Amino acid sequence: IVGVGRSMNNLDSAVRLGVIDEATQEISEGVKGADLVVSAVPVLRIIDTLKAAIPHLSPPCIITDVGSVKREIIEEVEPLLPEGVHFVPGHPIAGTEHSGVGAAFETLFEERVCILTPTEKTGREALEKIKSLWEAAGSRVVIMDPAIHDRTLAAISHLPHMIAYTLVNTVADAGGRTADILNYSAGGFKDFTRIASSSPEMWTEICSMNRDCIIEMLENFQIRLEWLKNLISEGNLKEIREDFERAKRIRDSLVKQA
Amino acid sequence: IVGVGRSMNNLDSAVRLGVIDEATQEISEGVKGADLVVSAVPVLRIIDTLKAAIPHLSPPCIITDVGSVKREIIEEVEPLLPEGVHFVPGHPIAGTEHSGVGAAFETLFEERVCILTPTEKTGREALEKIKSLWEAAGSRVVIMDPAIHDRTLAAISHLPHMIAYTLVNTVADAGGRTADILNYSAGGFKDFTRIASSSPEMWTEICSMNRDCIIEMLENFQIRLEWLKNLISEGNLKEIREDFERAKRIRDSLVKQA
Repeated sequence: IVGVGRSMNNLDSAVRLGVIDEATQEISEGVKGADLVVSAVPVLRIIDTLKAAIPHLSPPCIITDVGSVKREIIEEVEPLLPEGVHFVPGHPIAGTEHSGVGAAFETLFEERVCILTPTEKTGREALEKIKSLWEAAGSRVVIMDPAIHDRTLAAISHLPHMIAYTLVNTVADAGGRTADILNYSAGGFKDFTRIASSSPEMWTEICSMNRDCIIEMLENFQIRLEWLKNLISEGNLKEIREDFERAKRIRDSLVKQA
Repeated sequence: IVGVGRSMNNLDSAVRLGVIDEATQEISEGVKGADLVVSAVPVLRIIDTLKAAIPHLSPPCIITDVGSVKREIIEEVEPLLPEGVHFVPGHPIAGTEHSGVGAAFETLFEERVCILTPTEKTGREALEKIKSLWEAAGSRVVIMDPAIHDRTLAAISHLPHMIAYTLVNTVADAGGRTADILNYSAGGFKDFTRIASSSPEMWTEICSMNRDCIIEMLENFQIRLEWLKNLISEGNLKEIREDFERAKRIRDSLVKQA
């Protein structure tokens, strides 16, 4: 297992931790003769990274990625694939708010969903191999259309992150003196805003690459929030309660499934 | 310790669990001769409950409450107090998304902030007694002006709840077939929406009693979210990243304090 990275520091840690066998900063060198290339770079760099790797690959190499957005990557990468080299777009839905190889742990992918979004061009054998890889890591693999993937993730992951970042900034502003107001926040606020500690770099890139779906979800959310604000303003307690009861029912059912 | 409640079922559980010594459904009976009356009813019922209790109290009884909203309760209750009966408005910032006496546990108030919002009429001795009571339960007591309390809680607690309920409903709508879209949500979504499992009854009442502050915070949040949406729409990655970095810095500092 050869690790290719930007900083030797992080690569050295990866060797020390036993995550990779060898390290290099040169893509061409790292991917030479590889059976499998896994691109786990920030989502905005996946396309350029794969463009740099592809000329150095030989069949029957399989490429896969772990990016949170799929359509644009597929559109850019598929036309460049040489005969016999396959691309299986992937997205393991797992991770914490921490970054870097030091944040990795053995059970990270266990019991998690990994979405694979093959296209008409994806070879069946390559798809099966990547499916086995994620199943070996303990994940449940789901096959999904790339466009449905991007819309689903905008709803369940990208929208909550936009909201968490915005909430923390709103509450900080409301305090005037920030430390004061935040000092009184109970565990609820800390839990609720955990995802606001996620990598700003990664989330900025996701905003760029899944722009249309994220804006659609933000607008759906804005309409609902405006509606709730008006109910509160009118004192329409009956409808407020029905709205909260629906949300509680849905959320409680998630916990039961887990 | 005499418990007064609406349902004998819940009262019987409380006796069985050792939370109270005796139970009654009659306020007048329950508070007769009491040294201390703690009103822990839903926030919209605190005023009526205390109005029903006050005629049966004798000095030097102290009244306190645990409501999430303070101004309106103080305005309604203080004018009714007989000479020598004191009211110490309180709000322990603790709790889970579960309700009922069965959801109580011994360490619920440990290491939590309890806010007391005395007014000019609150006796110093009564305030000290209630302060000691919460300190004995393991809480850190903070004295705060009632209006500042209501505004602070709107920011750190009421706003996040409005957002969590709205987020769950938005995501469910986006799915068309709800179960499907929610099935792919990782731990992040479940954690982020935990507070959407909170009591709809309680939160509807808080919306009613802290209406002006909640609407102010909702509008602050809406302005920020619209601004972020426009940045995403324009592809202004620099400002998006600065916004996310600020939120991460603030949220990380909360964790360090904890």
